[in-house]
Amino acid sequence: MDVMARAAEIEALDGRVVHMEVGQPAAKAPLTAREAAARAAMEGTVGYTAALGIPSLRARIARHYVERYNVEVDPSRIVVTTGSSGGFILAFLALFEPGDRVAIASPGYPPYRHILKALGCEPVLIETHAASRWAITPEQLAEAHAAAPLKGVLVASPANPTGTMMTPEALAALVEAAHGLGIRFISDEIYHGLDYAFPAVTAACLSPDVTVIHSFSKYFCMTGWRVGWMVLPPALVRAAERLQQNLSISVPTLSQIAAEAAFDGAGEMEAVKHGYEANRLILGEGLPKAGLPEFLPVDGAFYLYADVSRFSDDSAAFARRLLDEAGVAATPGVDFDPVRGHNFLRLSYCGSQADMHEAVERIGGFLRRG
Amino acid sequence: MDVMARAAEIEALDGRVVHMEVGQPAAKAPLTAREAAARAAMEGTVGYTAALGIPSLRARIARHYVERYNVEVDPSRIVVTTGSSGGFILAFLALFEPGDRVAIASPGYPPYRHILKALGCEPVLIETHAASRWAITPEQLAEAHAAAPLKGVLVASPANPTGTMMTPEALAALVEAAHGLGIRFISDEIYHGLDYAFPAVTAACLSPDVTVIHSFSKYFCMTGWRVGWMVLPPALVRAAERLQQNLSISVPTLSQIAAEAAFDGAGEMEAVKHGYEANRLILGEGLPKAGLPEFLPVDGAFYLYADVSRFSDDSAAFARRLLDEAGVAATPGVDFDPVRGHNFLRLSYCGSQADMHEAVERIGGFLRRG
Repeated sequence: MDVMARAAEIEALDGRVVHMEVGQPAAKAPLTAREAAARAAMEGTVGYTAALGIPSLRARIARHYVERYNVEVDPSRIVVTTGSSGGFILAFLALFEPGDRVAIASPGYPPYRHILKALGCEPVLIETHAASRWAITPEQLAEAHAAAPLKGVLVASPANPTGTMMTPEALAALVEAAHGLGIRFISDEIYHGLDYAFPAVTAACLSPDVTVIHSFSKYFCMTGWRVGWMVLPPALVRAAERLQQNLSISVPTLSQIAAEAAFDGAGEMEAVKHGYEANRLILGEGLPKAGLPEFLPVDGAFYLYADVSRFSDDSAAFARRLLDEAGVAATPGVDFDPVRGHNFLRLSYCGSQADMHEAVERIGGFLRRG
Repeated sequence: MDVMARAAEIEALDGRVVHMEVGQPAAKAPLTAREAAARAAMEGTVGYTAALGIPSLRARIARHYVERYNVEVDPSRIVVTTGSSGGFILAFLALFEPGDRVAIASPGYPPYRHILKALGCEPVLIETHAASRWAITPEQLAEAHAAAPLKGVLVASPANPTGTMMTPEALAALVEAAHGLGIRFISDEIYHGLDYAFPAVTAACLSPDVTVIHSFSKYFCMTGWRVGWMVLPPALVRAAERLQQNLSISVPTLSQIAAEAAFDGAGEMEAVKHGYEANRLILGEGLPKAGLPEFLPVDGAFYLYADVSRFSDDSAAFARRLLDEAGVAATPGVDFDPVRGHNFLRLSYCGSQADMHEAVERIGGFLRRG
């Protein structure tokens, strides 16, 4: 937030900023989605929908699991949500009680711990390491559970802020470990579809007892529409329906209509994805030459998490200098990892290829000037 | 819900149902709102907005307080929410801690107690009576607070399911009593604009320390858009901003754009309101002649809460018979008041005038047949 405010100040003074601090695609939603929404706004009644979502959208999402992952998911297990944010609230309330301990990875997406705390649960941060490709391991889960019982574990792959993915083997092993310990498993798959290093596997194909959180925000470039979905264990659907009925009544109707039509615009979105892939290569080759050679595996999403410890042990100050002196806006790692984040920066590469080249050049000049 | 499912069954068999069970206007949002949304869907980026809402929308809502109530409310105190539902979640989390006791009226809107419970708070139902025009009184508040300290009190005027309003004097006295006892005051004003008996007064003009919840759903016929707002005490705005950032990121963007434009379509909405007023007269005159003379003061919103105790002490069974035998769908009061609701039915009059005449006729025939 400080970085965004400062970047706006610089631009107000006619300065040029390369934006690598934002987690939202620059592209618009697919044309199919925008047209469907515009049509419904003019012609439709835009009333409440069923609490679990428009039935044809739930069916279309279920079909997506067959098409993308070759796994059958009954539409009755699909719950449409007000963005993944709405999904987390429903999932945490359906799965946990106040006081419950839930393991999450550090570094990780800050709202996980904030939402858990707001609902009276206790987030248990597990520090991830290079040796396990920055994933929570079965051993770490068992250790944290032995210290004090865990009720849940939440993982994201590809992850924010790292862009790193869990291998299919690591994901399967952790799901199995969680099931063995009686710990609820939540898989945040919001960045699925944006996988470059290897194909992402959905936890839904590993077990019917996991909760999957997903969204139209990232792959379909629909951040401001606030629409996502969950795949729930069958026994939890009724609880989620009651919660959504009481907490939200229903999910924004135009967004649901747009979401269903978005699947018909996947070609457009694949082109956007190819842009991210090109950006990833530009940064992956350019940043080491520019003097920034250390970063976590750049597997998916549109994030690169760079180790800047050779330059600074205060990533917030470093991000501020990078912005003021080189006009590159990046997010300090301390937002995502209160302990080791002082040594990291998150660079978002959902901008243009020209921006990526310019970022590499600017970062190189900045580091050479010292 | 049972009523709605049964009504759908009857209609599937080509039966005719007069719908008086739904709390959602049949009319569409103002044309200005629909056009703004359609345009933004096609041309805009539809990204995240500021967590507190689009600044021009917040300013427009503040202007509404001057125009409608002649009270100055600083735009910084306006928080745009994902419907009033989103407002209740934010308000309860910003105002209360788990375990806090919050007084609400019975009969009342069921999600109040469900949301409070989901967030770990304790709803304290206060039975309202005809003698106080179905409003919580200062004496009742003090009594409940003496039994065990209350942290908050929530009132609605016009109220759901009753359609009854608090007089300006009763509202002022309760705000003063709450302030005197150190109890947070929340005023649900979602049905403001739909006041027939006398002009509704906003609690925002009585004190800067109350929290007002409002929505575009009812007066502006924008239920499925999921957009509303709060007026907060200045000291709570920062907490609400952080909560919204973490719980929702932001409110659906197209809905915010449509909401701002909706104010330009108030003429259209006044015509809709006049339709409700005509319906209210049809029922107010017709139901006593049809044999249903007892109902609460029909002041506002589009609800009539009828006492059916002379016919039944099981309102759910009575509603079922009314639907099956007369084709009129109504909501049993037991949804709104677990104790006395067995004697009441909620009739929603947001349908057409022809429907109201037909409802009176059908109800009359049903009651005569016995």
